[in-house]
Amino acid sequence: MRQFNKIAIIGVGLIGGSIGLAIKRNRVAGKVMGIFRRRSTLRRALRFKAIDKGTMDLKEGVKGADLIIIATPVSSIPALFRELIKHAKRGAIVTDVGSTKSWIVDRIEKTPGLSSIFFVGSHPMAGSEHSGVEFAKEDLFKGSPCIVTRTKKTNKRALSKVINFWKALGTKVEVMSPARHDRSVSIISHLPHIVAFSLAGAVPKKELLYAAEGFKDTTRVASSDPLLWSDIFLTNREELLRSARIFERYFKKLTSALSKDSRLRLVRLLKGAKAKRDSLTGQVSA
Amino acid sequence: MRQFNKIAIIGVGLIGGSIGLAIKRNRVAGKVMGIFRRRSTLRRALRFKAIDKGTMDLKEGVKGADLIIIATPVSSIPALFRELIKHAKRGAIVTDVGSTKSWIVDRIEKTPGLSSIFFVGSHPMAGSEHSGVEFAKEDLFKGSPCIVTRTKKTNKRALSKVINFWKALGTKVEVMSPARHDRSVSIISHLPHIVAFSLAGAVPKKELLYAAEGFKDTTRVASSDPLLWSDIFLTNREELLRSARIFERYFKKLTSALSKDSRLRLVRLLKGAKAKRDSLTGQVSA
Repeated sequence: MRQFNKIAIIGVGLIGGSIGLAIKRNRVAGKVMGIFRRRSTLRRALRFKAIDKGTMDLKEGVKGADLIIIATPVSSIPALFRELIKHAKRGAIVTDVGSTKSWIVDRIEKTPGLSSIFFVGSHPMAGSEHSGVEFAKEDLFKGSPCIVTRTKKTNKRALSKVINFWKALGTKVEVMSPARHDRSVSIISHLPHIVAFSLAGAVPKKELLYAAEGFKDTTRVASSDPLLWSDIFLTNREELLRSARIFERYFKKLTSALSKDSRLRLVRLLKGAKAKRDSLTGQVSA
Repeated sequence: MRQFNKIAIIGVGLIGGSIGLAIKRNRVAGKVMGIFRRRSTLRRALRFKAIDKGTMDLKEGVKGADLIIIATPVSSIPALFRELIKHAKRGAIVTDVGSTKSWIVDRIEKTPGLSSIFFVGSHPMAGSEHSGVEFAKEDLFKGSPCIVTRTKKTNKRALSKVINFWKALGTKVEVMSPARHDRSVSIISHLPHIVAFSLAGAVPKKELLYAAEGFKDTTRVASSDPLLWSDIFLTNREELLRSARIFERYFKKLTSALSKDSRLRLVRLLKGAKAKRDSLTGQVSA
């Protein structure tokens, strides 16, 4: 069902590309325009049919767009926003897909001259350890959570349009404040990443020979892009450090039960962890 | 290629059942006998064709067997061994599939009256978070590592027969001492499990709503059996505590780079971790 005439996507990688494919699949827009920094990426996005048209000129790209989606690394989003509002049409809605929200939303809401453009922060919680439009999938978001942020400054009409957009892509939308988002994802997403990086980093190379499925699954996301994830970790620093302490406490409980040879206590802790993990089974896989 | 006339498997769950299926698939034995504690499990194993015949009588089960495989939880293995040698035929070879080795092998090699029976420790490094013969797969071991242990007391002929057995099931066999095995698996297998349990345990229930693929993969093995894994952790306690400290050091390095806002240092650590994890890609999946 068409919701917008023209949607512009800035940055057409794994996430931006999957959005493009899903928009086209679900006929959410009349036209999908991709905006690129590099010609090679533009060509690939056209080849994978993630967009209808591509440009390397931001002004041309956002011209006349009803919805503009910034799908670039977190740290680049506020600056791109400041640039694009010079060229966006009056009443255009802008959203992003950044994995942290307070850092982005705070900066964007302080941008001067925001009266004619509406910004709503988004975080579709899907992805993979891969990067690039060649890994984009039209059903990447299907059944996965998508957090949309609301602040005192959020325009209600724009908010509802952004919610409907993500619903059309098959996500389960939740609306919350940027701060609440950052606390949630710090423990359910950023923490598993920093833990997986730690596990992969801690293992001596020669032991990798004996890696079975357990190790491979637990560290899969350690193959993610280090630059992208440094950005995410640093822009959600306080919350991630808080979540790291929560994790460390549980880990300490387990190793302390172990060092005290307390089978009873160990079993109880493992059972508590298993019950939580088991409760996810049956949920739609992202 | 037939290597044994009769193979007896004690404990026919995920691992024992997959061994039975693989033996039959590869025609490694004339007959596969399963030995059970519960009639319901015996019936299920027959239904899934993991064995040719089943019994709840240990004496009857191991009678005449050329190879006996103990596929029960770690803590039960030494006692089962002491029991079965009363009934096993002269010259029979016994192996196990326990995830820790020194604890098991030390106890078994001290068993009185061991002159007519040969024991060789094994650890096929495959599995899943599931338990039970209904999850058994004939190709569970294909391409995965299998560690076979050698000590001063190991009989050479028995060792080579056990090696050939695991090779026939498609594993990549490595021979090493029980102590070396325990150090390797403490960091490449037991640590990821205790970390996954910690992650799942640390997350507040209400945040599980936002779990995406990253969290699910990283914690998949936290759905494993708490009793089985308490056994494993406790019988490899010293090495696992040592590996836990190695992990904690890396984790501290990451969180300290984060709390100091040191992007350079963070990126360098993440890159090092990613390089190790990427080196596994292309390896045959277990």
